[in-house]
Amino acid sequence: MRAEIITIGDELLIGQVVDTNSAWMAERLNENGIELFQITSVHDDRAHIIAALDEAFGRADIVLTTGGLGPTKDDITKQVLCDYFDTHLIEDPRVREHIQRLYSSRPDVLNRLTATQWMVPECAEILENRVGSAPLMVFHKGNKLLVSMPGVPYEMKIAMDEQILPYLEHSVFSRQHSAILHRTLQVNGIPESSLAIILEDYETQKPEYIHLAYLPKDGIIRLRLSSYGEASEAEMEDWFERLKGLVKAYLIAETDEPLEVIAGQLLKAKGATIATAESCTGGKLASLLNKHSGSSAFYYGSVICYDNSIKERLLGVPKEMIQTHGVVSEEVVREMANAVRIQMKTDYAIATSGIAGPTGGTEEKPVGTVWIAWAGPEGTVAERFQLGKLREQVTDRACQKALVRLIQILRKQA
Amino acid sequence: MRAEIITIGDELLIGQVVDTNSAWMAERLNENGIELFQITSVHDDRAHIIAALDEAFGRADIVLTTGGLGPTKDDITKQVLCDYFDTHLIEDPRVREHIQRLYSSRPDVLNRLTATQWMVPECAEILENRVGSAPLMVFHKGNKLLVSMPGVPYEMKIAMDEQILPYLEHSVFSRQHSAILHRTLQVNGIPESSLAIILEDYETQKPEYIHLAYLPKDGIIRLRLSSYGEASEAEMEDWFERLKGLVKAYLIAETDEPLEVIAGQLLKAKGATIATAESCTGGKLASLLNKHSGSSAFYYGSVICYDNSIKERLLGVPKEMIQTHGVVSEEVVREMANAVRIQMKTDYAIATSGIAGPTGGTEEKPVGTVWIAWAGPEGTVAERFQLGKLREQVTDRACQKALVRLIQILRKQA
Repeated sequence: MRAEIITIGDELLIGQVVDTNSAWMAERLNENGIELFQITSVHDDRAHIIAALDEAFGRADIVLTTGGLGPTKDDITKQVLCDYFDTHLIEDPRVREHIQRLYSSRPDVLNRLTATQWMVPECAEILENRVGSAPLMVFHKGNKLLVSMPGVPYEMKIAMDEQILPYLEHSVFSRQHSAILHRTLQVNGIPESSLAIILEDYETQKPEYIHLAYLPKDGIIRLRLSSYGEASEAEMEDWFERLKGLVKAYLIAETDEPLEVIAGQLLKAKGATIATAESCTGGKLASLLNKHSGSSAFYYGSVICYDNSIKERLLGVPKEMIQTHGVVSEEVVREMANAVRIQMKTDYAIATSGIAGPTGGTEEKPVGTVWIAWAGPEGTVAERFQLGKLREQVTDRACQKALVRLIQILRKQA
Repeated sequence: MRAEIITIGDELLIGQVVDTNSAWMAERLNENGIELFQITSVHDDRAHIIAALDEAFGRADIVLTTGGLGPTKDDITKQVLCDYFDTHLIEDPRVREHIQRLYSSRPDVLNRLTATQWMVPECAEILENRVGSAPLMVFHKGNKLLVSMPGVPYEMKIAMDEQILPYLEHSVFSRQHSAILHRTLQVNGIPESSLAIILEDYETQKPEYIHLAYLPKDGIIRLRLSSYGEASEAEMEDWFERLKGLVKAYLIAETDEPLEVIAGQLLKAKGATIATAESCTGGKLASLLNKHSGSSAFYYGSVICYDNSIKERLLGVPKEMIQTHGVVSEEVVREMANAVRIQMKTDYAIATSGIAGPTGGTEEKPVGTVWIAWAGPEGTVAERFQLGKLREQVTDRACQKALVRLIQILRKQA
């Protein structure tokens, strides 16, 4: 069972919006045994949309489109789909009722443009968009299916989870579909090419239908095994175990979960808490630690001390220490971690101080120099890193390094 | 002059990686007068890559590909391009020297797989990849061009800015290219459909070759005027000014710059400083305020007080106040803003407290309830918002609301 995604919107093609929808949808489709063959982003343009639909139907069984369903003139997807499927718009009383209920407390939204949202293509099946006014539309083309949904990420996500995937489950998946298997592990502390040399024999020995991919990001490499219907689960498991054995010395995680999730699970399992004191990462590490639901069980808080005076006043880092060693130094970062751990009364604390750039670098401490300290019941450790040249890269990598070592510390003390 | 992007990598199609490259490249291409017609994401698969190349060349003059250039077996782009352009790999001494220099301090990286990186297609022009080992390759196909570059975002960005755009400028742009004009403004506090009704006459009156698009995100609507070569700058300016006049009451910004950049500019212009005290936004607002270079001029620091004890101990919010009014209340959020402003000795401070969900909501304060307070030299104000149902949506929107009001306050006091 093969799907394609077509994302519709000029904003994608002038770079005003990053398409985060496709990756999210891709993950869900794969989990449900549907291979995503291609993602195509096209303009809000009739001819362009129609050409993309024809091409996608030539390759795939299911075509999912997002975008172009707003009430404003620049959104044309619904009308184009009417033309494509040779149908016309009719009023749908259920959609009308839903939209009137949705905006019952906001009469200003219930204007005549919003009213166009309850006009739907006659030949389409309409699924309920619980959180928005754009209808979810399903069209049939022979044995194939087209699903049109809004591009607003949270509307699309709720639509996929509550309506579209269950719909596909009933109407399509049952026909036949083979299991897509993915297993991912994460390693740290080895260059990609060296890793590939270690895995050379493994790559020769494994069956061709189990694919191995290398995904380096922010200093971590994810190794992913994939099979599209040919490997059994036991076979996959076997090759995954062998892979794990070969990279044991560098292994950080046996799943694809973000490192902050793994760290959170370890903290929760210990009943332990954590705080951060951040200079160069400026709240990014805090945001990661409390990004996911349930983080209030282990994450207490942070002091973001971007300005040096805040390090002195809020964290009590001695002025002389900063003057002697510089603010990006082992001494200062250790002091920050210890201070925030005591202040917040947590079991663990992480502190960061570095030069994110583009300015501020020196010969001794060039842009990308970051000191990180980890404080915990067994003492405090610190490490210096060189994390690249671009501001965002430096701070993203610093967060990943902070989480890698935290995970190692938590595992050792488990 | 029309371009297309082909992003190559299984990771994009199983949702393991979000394609942030394309939006970045799209913006740069548009700035340089090149229309981006389509973005296509394909598998690391020979037949799929070749089909995508054929299709893209059928529509565009320039095809840019990213990804598949690593030294590991799963990366096949270079070999496929050799086949496509009927050429073979030869050693490039300049690339060899560059890679040996790049990794001179890391002999572990200089292994035989890395050595495959200095083998390049004979017919390709090679541009220097200053920060990585994958060569930047330019292929000619009649009057058309293909540029292949790595998918690692920071390598791609440096390659585009330092090598590829200047290359295109010299070799292609000079042939002929028409000015692509985009003008964007941002509004707040009006539903999209109501805005469209206000702009109905405007949309009828403006020339068809000036396009108007509505881009709602995180509670802000961006209105974009675009012209692909047909409108003069003066004409565009004229229609932009009229648009501005019509939405004056809701106008937040006259450019497409992120709100944190606009707030930063206003703070810098005043020589003023800011701090934040964040509960539900958990460091996201801090991260935004210090995301861009130069933020140390106005951003001092933050207290992230996720746990209530931190609100009491670090910010001195009275326990009784929390007990009486609840932690998500006007009283508490005002106290937080005032406290962090005094503690950090800044001119302004913003505090957030809310229920990001998915748990923690009550009938009186459902998930999505957020209180925000702004403290400044003219006093403290607070506002309650209802920001949706999804955790990420609630915190993203809270940050945007915080910035909108901050900008309004800074402008009023200018």
